[in-house]
Amino acid sequence: MDTDKENKISITVIRRLPKYYRHLGELLRRGINRTSSQELSRLTGFTASQIRQDLNNFGGFGQQGYGYNVEELHSQLGKILGLDKIYNTVITGAGNLGQAIANYRGFAEAGFKLLSLFDKNPKVIGLKIGDIEIRDVDELEDFVRGNNVEIGIITTPREHAQDVADAYIKGGVKGIWNFAPADLKVDDNIIIENVHLNESLFTLSYFLTNKGDYVKS
Amino acid sequence: MDTDKENKISITVIRRLPKYYRHLGELLRRGINRTSSQELSRLTGFTASQIRQDLNNFGGFGQQGYGYNVEELHSQLGKILGLDKIYNTVITGAGNLGQAIANYRGFAEAGFKLLSLFDKNPKVIGLKIGDIEIRDVDELEDFVRGNNVEIGIITTPREHAQDVADAYIKGGVKGIWNFAPADLKVDDNIIIENVHLNESLFTLSYFLTNKGDYVKS
Repeated sequence: MDTDKENKISITVIRRLPKYYRHLGELLRRGINRTSSQELSRLTGFTASQIRQDLNNFGGFGQQGYGYNVEELHSQLGKILGLDKIYNTVITGAGNLGQAIANYRGFAEAGFKLLSLFDKNPKVIGLKIGDIEIRDVDELEDFVRGNNVEIGIITTPREHAQDVADAYIKGGVKGIWNFAPADLKVDDNIIIENVHLNESLFTLSYFLTNKGDYVKS
Repeated sequence: MDTDKENKISITVIRRLPKYYRHLGELLRRGINRTSSQELSRLTGFTASQIRQDLNNFGGFGQQGYGYNVEELHSQLGKILGLDKIYNTVITGAGNLGQAIANYRGFAEAGFKLLSLFDKNPKVIGLKIGDIEIRDVDELEDFVRGNNVEIGIITTPREHAQDVADAYIKGGVKGIWNFAPADLKVDDNIIIENVHLNESLFTLSYFLTNKGDYVKS
């Protein structure tokens, strides 16, 4: 049991990986092919020793005296994050937020294949966002089942979020990216990633109100 | 110096406050007027002792044997988060994401007053989102200065984000809510709160790819 636990990575480490990945991608775009934990520290705000420790969890890609090869590290982190795969996704809630995500550049680039949007508003059902048709939410569960949808995105108002999550899960979705300000009740084997915009905004509000009244740790 | 530091609250505590605030708001909506650290633990996923410790930082609102008065705690946390104030805000980037935020229910409710949207696309300048006019981004700095805008929101593509931030800051903005996948360079006295959608999506992807291969701490 203990050995098992020691081999696993903690969530706090995992949550730092996408930031490393993003900054490495920016270095690549700028044509920079070699970096160091010190430079990554400057870019990400984490300490250099923290970064070395984090990356060591995955076998350690750095070489003493050389640092990290940006392309290799970026590619390795991409595999660790599962970005070398294609995921079938759908969005429920075809309002502005749903459309924003449907049009989000980084989304398709990272292997997230949007198959359809769903809404319950008859005025938008049948319309297209780019090439993607908006379908009736009544068809959601069947569509998810029939098209091997792995990630369901929720951009509905709070009061519909749980119903949408239930339809996703019955249809066989494995992960939910939830933008509704609701805490979804799902089985432990379903992965939920929440984007709570209010919580982010309220954090900003706190810092504006209590300037300097906090420590960065 | 040390005493000073001890009186300050750590960022990790602060980031938990909006979650408490949101759950207390839901309890209020459901007509529940009394709660406990145990119930808040069930709702938020933090431990009861963690919650008691967090709330003690702000004077401690609970009473032994009674628990917390939901309305009072909600109101106190609202004040701590600065939500009893009105903030003037503008959005730059009037695409889907900017419009989604402009239409976001919780935004106005929490005291964030949207004065205008800005864009550089002549096709949308002059249009209205609800009552709010879309203006030319060339007017941004002057508008911010003339209307006491405290929070600037960025929903532009990455490549324009730094220019927008610079205009905001020259105009006198104190905080930036940034949705562009860019790391803004600003002076230390400017508060930046980032919403990096890609990082959230990549975390979901990690958990789907590495199911069970992590520990929750």
